[in-house]
Amino acid sequence: MFASIRGRCGPAKQLVSTVRAAVPRGRTTLLAAGLICRANYHKPVRNEAFKRLTKDDLNFFKTIVPSETILATAQVGGTADAVELEGFNADWLNKYRGNSQLVLRPKTAEQVSQILQYCNTHNIAVVPQGGNTGLVGGSVPVHDEIVLSLRNMNKVRSYDELSGILVCDAGCVLEELGNYVGERGHVMPLDLGAKGSCHIGGNVATNAGGIRFLRYGSLHGSVLGLEVVLPDGTILDNLSTLRKDNTGYDLKQLFIGSEGTLGVITGVSVATPQRPSAVNVAVLGVPTYECVQRAFKLARKRCGEVLSAYEFWDANCMGAVLKHHELKSPLSAEFPFYVLIETSGSNKEHDDEKLGALLEELMEEGIAEDGALAQDDSQIARMWSMREGIPESLGKTGATYKYDVSIPIPVLYDIVGDIAQRLESASLYKPGDMTRPVKIVCGYGHIGDGNLHLNVVAGQFEDRVTEIFEPYVYEWVASHRGSISAEHGVGLMKRDYLRYSKSPEMIAYMKRVKDLFDPNHILNPYKVV
Amino acid sequence: MFASIRGRCGPAKQLVSTVRAAVPRGRTTLLAAGLICRANYHKPVRNEAFKRLTKDDLNFFKTIVPSETILATAQVGGTADAVELEGFNADWLNKYRGNSQLVLRPKTAEQVSQILQYCNTHNIAVVPQGGNTGLVGGSVPVHDEIVLSLRNMNKVRSYDELSGILVCDAGCVLEELGNYVGERGHVMPLDLGAKGSCHIGGNVATNAGGIRFLRYGSLHGSVLGLEVVLPDGTILDNLSTLRKDNTGYDLKQLFIGSEGTLGVITGVSVATPQRPSAVNVAVLGVPTYECVQRAFKLARKRCGEVLSAYEFWDANCMGAVLKHHELKSPLSAEFPFYVLIETSGSNKEHDDEKLGALLEELMEEGIAEDGALAQDDSQIARMWSMREGIPESLGKTGATYKYDVSIPIPVLYDIVGDIAQRLESASLYKPGDMTRPVKIVCGYGHIGDGNLHLNVVAGQFEDRVTEIFEPYVYEWVASHRGSISAEHGVGLMKRDYLRYSKSPEMIAYMKRVKDLFDPNHILNPYKVV
Repeated sequence: MFASIRGRCGPAKQLVSTVRAAVPRGRTTLLAAGLICRANYHKPVRNEAFKRLTKDDLNFFKTIVPSETILATAQVGGTADAVELEGFNADWLNKYRGNSQLVLRPKTAEQVSQILQYCNTHNIAVVPQGGNTGLVGGSVPVHDEIVLSLRNMNKVRSYDELSGILVCDAGCVLEELGNYVGERGHVMPLDLGAKGSCHIGGNVATNAGGIRFLRYGSLHGSVLGLEVVLPDGTILDNLSTLRKDNTGYDLKQLFIGSEGTLGVITGVSVATPQRPSAVNVAVLGVPTYECVQRAFKLARKRCGEVLSAYEFWDANCMGAVLKHHELKSPLSAEFPFYVLIETSGSNKEHDDEKLGALLEELMEEGIAEDGALAQDDSQIARMWSMREGIPESLGKTGATYKYDVSIPIPVLYDIVGDIAQRLESASLYKPGDMTRPVKIVCGYGHIGDGNLHLNVVAGQFEDRVTEIFEPYVYEWVASHRGSISAEHGVGLMKRDYLRYSKSPEMIAYMKRVKDLFDPNHILNPYKVV
Repeated sequence: MFASIRGRCGPAKQLVSTVRAAVPRGRTTLLAAGLICRANYHKPVRNEAFKRLTKDDLNFFKTIVPSETILATAQVGGTADAVELEGFNADWLNKYRGNSQLVLRPKTAEQVSQILQYCNTHNIAVVPQGGNTGLVGGSVPVHDEIVLSLRNMNKVRSYDELSGILVCDAGCVLEELGNYVGERGHVMPLDLGAKGSCHIGGNVATNAGGIRFLRYGSLHGSVLGLEVVLPDGTILDNLSTLRKDNTGYDLKQLFIGSEGTLGVITGVSVATPQRPSAVNVAVLGVPTYECVQRAFKLARKRCGEVLSAYEFWDANCMGAVLKHHELKSPLSAEFPFYVLIETSGSNKEHDDEKLGALLEELMEEGIAEDGALAQDDSQIARMWSMREGIPESLGKTGATYKYDVSIPIPVLYDIVGDIAQRLESASLYKPGDMTRPVKIVCGYGHIGDGNLHLNVVAGQFEDRVTEIFEPYVYEWVASHRGSISAEHGVGLMKRDYLRYSKSPEMIAYMKRVKDLFDPNHILNPYKVV
C-alpha cells in the first residue's frame, strides 16, 4: 500500500502490477505490437570511397575472430539471412535502418585492433555498436558498414570494494553491472530506462545522462579511465583506477560522448559511489509547471544532499503509461503534472524526516495537490516504472518523434505547448483526438538538469508532420541558448543541426579532432560531425 | 573552546590564534623569512626558433593593450626594472625562475586573441599566468617567454541564483568567487589552500583538486563551459550554462588540465552546488596509518552523503605547522597521525547526530585516541588552518621538495617511510636532527582521493639530495600503478617523467593534440609534453 500524503488520512492507493524490472523494453514489444513503422528521414548518400565487402574480406576476418562470432550474409560469402542481422541493422524505435551484411563480435581489444587496422587499410566503414538502445540513429549502420558489436566483451575485469572502482569490458550491460556493484555495497553512477539492454561502453560513448545525473553528475567526472582502440589499430590503454591523475592531456574525455566516431571503447574504469542504505520515493500531483519548479527549489532546500532524483512528466505521458503498462496511479485524481522525488541517504530516519517535512510543506503551500509515498521496495519500483515506462508507452501508441533538449528551467516546458499549437494550427493535431495524424504531444524529463524530452506521437513518420517542428525545435532551442541534444547525442538525426548549438569555430575544431584520430573517416560515418 | 571527544569529559582545548583567512600565504612571507633558495633543477636549453623580443614588438603590443597593463624592461624598449617583473618570473616557492622581459595583462578575450595571433605569426613564446601559485613550474617562464597574465580579467559575467551557474573571467580569484556565490547561497565546487591568490582560470588549466574533491568531484564534471583563445587567435566560445550538452566532441575537456599549453582560458562557466547550511569539523589523533584508513571507511559509512572532507597529516607536518603558525593543537597530546573530518549538510541536527555517532565509535574502537570537535565557525577555521598551513610551514623551514602523487590507499603512506629510510642510509637525514641536509620528511593529503603530498624539506636544493628520490619516487609510484601527478600537474618539473604514468601511445597522441591546437608550440614551451 502507498501512503497517501494528503494529511496522512486519505485512502491508501494501490498500484496494480509490474515491478520495475518487469517493465518490458525494446524491439520485441514493439514488433509484437505491430507498430513497426519507418521514418522517412534524410539518409545521406553512400560514400563510394568506402570499399564494398567481398568474400576475401570475410575470409580475413575469419582469421581474427571465431566463426561463431561472425554473422555474414550470402552477399559477402556468408550463410546468415537478413533476419539474423535485423537486430543490428535497425534501431529499437525502428526509425533508422542500415543494410549491413556483416556483423563482427570480437572478444578482445586485440581482436578489435586487428579488425580496425584491416578496415582502415582497406577503407572499410565500421559502426561500433553496444546495446543499440540509442535514439538518434547513432548505433546502426546507414548503408553497408560493418557492425562491430561489443556484446561479447562483457566481463568485469576488476573491482575494488574499498574504493568502489570498477574496471570492465565495454559490452557489460548496465543493469548487470548495477547488480554486481550493488551486491558489494555500491551503486553505478548512472541509471536509465534502457539499463536492461544498454552497454556501459555505449553509455560512455554517448555520455549518457539519466536519472542519477542530479546526484552523481556527469560521466566526465565518474569515468576514471578508458581502453580505446583507434582506427589504425592503436590500443590506447588509459584504464586508470585513480580518482586523480593530472599527467598530461585527459584524452579519454574526448571519447566520452564521441558516439563511436573517434575510436572504439573496449574497456571502462568507473568510480561507483557507496550504495545509500535508505531510499525513499514519492509521487506528487502538481497543478502547474510553475509549481513543478517551486517544488524543485524547495526539494533542494529541504532534502539537500539526499535528493537523488527529481523527475517530472505531464498528463499526456501519464495517460499513455497508465494505458500501456496497466498501472494504476497512486494518486486520487488526474493532474496536469506529476513529479517523482527520490531521496537516497545513509540514515533512514533522517531521510524520512527531511522528505516528510518537504511533502507536508508542499501540500500546505498548495504546490502539490496530492501525493503518495512508497512504503516498500516494490512500491518504489512501481513508481519508477511509471516514469521509466513513458518512452515505451509512447512507442506503443505510434511513431514517436523524440527531441532531447536542454533549456533554461523557467521556459523549459513552453516548447511543448508551442509545438502542440503549431500542429493544431496545421490541423494535424487536436488534443485527445487519437484519429488525427498526430496523437500525442507531451513532455517529461529531468528538471534539475534542465533536460526536457519532448515527444510527438504520430500515426506514422511523415514529412508534413516532420516539417512542422524540424528545424523549428532546433531554432527554438537555439534562441533560448539551449542545447539541441542534452543527453541523447547527435548521431545521424542531428548532424545537420549541430550549428544550432555549436559555433563554426567549435565545429571546425571538432572536424580537425576527427581527422586526427580517424583520418580516413571509417568510424561511424555520416554521423556527429 | 573546542569540545573534547574523549568521553566528552576531558579538558576543553584552546587554540591560540589565527583564523583561517589570516594564514599568510605566498612569496612575501618566504622572502621575509629569508628562505629564498634556488632549485638546481634541469633547465631545458632555450629553443632558438623563438624570436627574441624587440622594441618593434613592444610597440605593436602597445597598440593592443593600454600602456598601464604592460611591464617591459629596457632590454625590449620599456622602462620597468627586473624587480617589477620578479613576481611574474619566479614561482612562489622560488624553485623555478624565468627571465621574461615583458608582461602583458590584457583586459578582454579579444586582446588576448590579438596578442596570440601576433605571437603565433612571429614565433614568440608565451606563458599564460594566473595567480602563479602552481607547484610544478608550469606558470612561470623558463627563458624569455612573454608572460600573459590574466589578472586584469577578473569580472563575474553572470550568475543564475536558481541554477547556481556562474560565468566569469579566468582571472577571478577563487576566494573572491567563493565569497560571491556564498552570499547567494552557493559554494564553489573546489577549495584549496592557495584560494586567496589562485585564479579560477589557473584552477581549470591545472585541473586543481583540493579539499572538496571528495564531495563535489572533478572539474571535468563541474566546469560547464570555457572560453579559450587558441594560438592562431581563434576564440573558441563554449561558455555553455547548461548542465547537459551532448552536441559533438566535448573540446573544453582538453583544456581542463592542459596547463596553458593548448590555449589560453579567458572565461569559465561552472556549476556551484548549494551551500550547506550546517558544517561540522573534528580533528582526531590517530595511532597508525592503518587506523587512518579504518577511520575513513567508517566515516564514509556513518556520514555518507554529508562527508565533505577527510584529510590527514603526520606528526612531522603537525610539528611544522604548530611551530610556524603559532597554533596550539586542540588535542591533549602528540600522535603519529592526525585526521580532519568535515561534514556539510542541510540539517544541523542530523549532521551532529551522524558525526557524533562516528566519533564515539572511533574512540570506543580505539581507532582514534583523542579528538576535538569545533564549536563554532572560528574554531572550524582554526582547525582548517592547521591543515592548510602545512605547505607554508614547511616552506618556512627550508627548501621543500614537493611530490604530489596518487597511490592505492592501502600503501599510500609507505612511500614516506621508504624515502626517509633512503635518506637516512645516505646519512643525509636523521629524524629530529635539524642540522642534517634534510630536515623533515613528511606526508599529508586527501586520503579519500588516494592523493598523497610527500614533502622533503632540506637546507637547500642540492643534487646529492635530489638524486636520492628522483626518479626513485616516480619509479615507486609507477610500480604501484599510481600517478606521478595527482592534482598539481606536470609543468616543467615532471615533463621528463610523464612516461612513468602514461604509455608511449598516449604520449604520442598528446603530442599530436598539441600539434593540432598549437602547431608552432608557442604556448608554455618546455612543459607538459
